[in-house]
Amino acid sequence: MLYAQAHFTLPAWIHEAVDTARTYTGDEAKVELAITLSRLNLDHGSGGPFGAAVFDGEDRLVSVGVNRVVPQTCSVAHAEMMAYMCAQQRLQRYRLNEDGSRFVLATSAQPCCQCYGATVWAGIDALLIGARSADVEELTEFDEGPLPADWVGELEKRGIAVRRDIQREAARAVLRRYGEQGGPTY
Amino acid sequence: MLYAQAHFTLPAWIHEAVDTARTYTGDEAKVELAITLSRLNLDHGSGGPFGAAVFDGEDRLVSVGVNRVVPQTCSVAHAEMMAYMCAQQRLQRYRLNEDGSRFVLATSAQPCCQCYGATVWAGIDALLIGARSADVEELTEFDEGPLPADWVGELEKRGIAVRRDIQREAARAVLRRYGEQGGPTY
Repeated sequence: MLYAQAHFTLPAWIHEAVDTARTYTGDEAKVELAITLSRLNLDHGSGGPFGAAVFDGEDRLVSVGVNRVVPQTCSVAHAEMMAYMCAQQRLQRYRLNEDGSRFVLATSAQPCCQCYGATVWAGIDALLIGARSADVEELTEFDEGPLPADWVGELEKRGIAVRRDIQREAARAVLRRYGEQGGPTY
Repeated sequence: MLYAQAHFTLPAWIHEAVDTARTYTGDEAKVELAITLSRLNLDHGSGGPFGAAVFDGEDRLVSVGVNRVVPQTCSVAHAEMMAYMCAQQRLQRYRLNEDGSRFVLATSAQPCCQCYGATVWAGIDALLIGARSADVEELTEFDEGPLPADWVGELEKRGIAVRRDIQREAARAVLRRYGEQGGPTY
């Protein structure tokens, strides 16, 4: 008998914690939401200290994600992957911007090798990053995995603008707390 | 209102097409199954021409995957991702080999940048590959995405042995048919 399905959910607190009615104008506000999600995920013990969110071209929230690796026993369930999956299932498009509209992913920390690759296919136009990979590896035991040497250039070649160090200190603070608590790494 | 879940399924024909009782001894038999899945997925119109399977250290099948990007409207639903997700949900482990047991992924074609990154975290000990990326890009319109220059070495550094060109001609034949038919690329 084959196990022929996989099901991912975001934690229940998401619905109370996220304001879906407002607009998130500017890069700072978008990454701030991702970092807030990373902190709340740690507070609630519902996964690792990472958050992400997808926005459309009018700065409206399309989806959010938090790390769910341990609760869902699945290495795919990183915050960025959850945000992409939920956005694509909501809009029913396997490439978000295939109709020419514009999408942005904000993430609390630089995507690991898996989320980096997923970013190439998801159909976003810009990637906004809080903490650097060096921050993740300095403050926690997480490994970010191997990337192409010019990982930013490879995204930009494919039409994805990259902006880093947005609210970096706030993002680092969540990672530091996780590292000091000694949570699981995977 | 947030869309807070994602659900992936393998096509119904999987249950009839795959023999879960036998053992798959040797690398050739494992990749042969992955290639058969890639061909059947094309025959059934249930996704792109890619298949994958996870085996345990006793050559028993743990899970299979086929590309489900279009039917599931999700860029995450590549064959290797489906196989990892189903294996991890079946075994309830986010890193398959965390208990010291051994796992192998066989795939009909070299993992793209997303599946490459996922392979780093999934908890496998060996990666068996049919067609090369160059074959995929020669015979179809698919892009394989950016990888680290020494992608094999980066996996081997993390304890994942890589073997390529297994049943390569059979894998190429499926890709060629897809390319000639002019199926969607994504």
